Amino acid sequence: MSNERLEMQMQFIIEIDKLKQIVRGTYLLDEARAENDAEHSWHIAVMAVLLCEYAAEPNINLLRVVKMLLIHDLVEIDAGDTLRYDEEGNKTKAAREQAAADRIFNILPPDQASDIRSLWEEFEARETPEAKFANALDRVQPLLHNYLTQGRSWREHEITVDQVLAKNIHVLEEGSPELAKYAKRMIQGAVEKGYLAKADD
Amino acid sequence: MSNERLEMQMQFIIEIDKLKQIVRGTYLLDEARAENDAEHSWHIAVMAVLLCEYAAEPNINLLRVVKMLLIHDLVEIDAGDTLRYDEEGNKTKAAREQAAADRIFNILPPDQASDIRSLWEEFEARETPEAKFANALDRVQPLLHNYLTQGRSWREHEITVDQVLAKNIHVLEEGSPELAKYAKRMIQGAVEKGYLAKADD
Repeated sequence: MSNERLEMQMQFIIEIDKLKQIVRGTYLLDEARAENDAEHSWHIAVMAVLLCEYAAEPNINLLRVVKMLLIHDLVEIDAGDTLRYDEEGNKTKAAREQAAADRIFNILPPDQASDIRSLWEEFEARETPEAKFANALDRVQPLLHNYLTQGRSWREHEITVDQVLAKNIHVLEEGSPELAKYAKRMIQGAVEKGYLAKADD
Repeated sequence: MSNERLEMQMQFIIEIDKLKQIVRGTYLLDEARAENDAEHSWHIAVMAVLLCEYAAEPNINLLRVVKMLLIHDLVEIDAGDTLRYDEEGNKTKAAREQAAADRIFNILPPDQASDIRSLWEEFEARETPEAKFANALDRVQPLLHNYLTQGRSWREHEITVDQVLAKNIHVLEEGSPELAKYAKRMIQGAVEKGYLAKADD
């Protein structure tokens, strides 16, 4: 007799293999190619484990942070990756991602579909200490990748320092003041080195 | 003033970006390309979250399982991926991986280097309930990928059903009897469909 619940879970596990082909704006550190969402999700989950001492609030639930990071980009299987600086794309992003969540999470048994959707909504709402810290990691990793690839993705999309600061620093400050400080030093360095343009350049 | 501890942690986070280019024997489910260790680690970490109800022992520490899975392949940055069925490669694997662990984990501050090394050694030793379950997931995912790509990697390396059973089933049984049952049905199906050769084929 087969286990129907396990079959549903396996169908979801099969479906999410597609995240490995959702290409992001940022590059691997040796610039061999752009990274994908599965790699990015893995990278920031490891960062959560190593950097949780810098979360704005002490005693956060690290397991919840890691779960959020592992699943936070799954909706992009249908909705695609939307560049943070793409004003047009960001107007339709929420609707596209809600539709994706409806389809993808509901492949799971109902109790798990509901759990994973709650985690994703918690991440998106950025209200709990765990979601704030998770979002800070999701912001600092692309900054690091951009900085270490001489601003590759910033230059390709003609992003200026004002945009980078406006889109990221408040999220970093609320999730991790220490990582916000680190990011500000990187951004300052990127401007000095010419990786990142000033608004009036 | 810079935070030296954070600098060390960031050096490690930069180093492990290389895991995204350690290519595995198994393929993405649409066979577009082989998958890499970072994608595989992400995939089985999500599986741990969704399938922990099937762990052989109840009440395992899920956070420890997920941490182990996130870091279990980092040594392959130096040691490379060794196919489970490569008898020659497996003779030197332990020594190559110990040397890799010495170099890579020690990029971290000493307390975290020790924590991550302990987690990796726990995974490798397969003695705790958490390590047993983590290893079961590390076995079932490649089986699933092989089955769903018509045995692509099995065929490329001329692997027989006896080898697949001998290398995997005991690990699956001790980590998750339910996943062992699932895997045995898949392997049986793979033989029936001609994806996996019998020993005397």
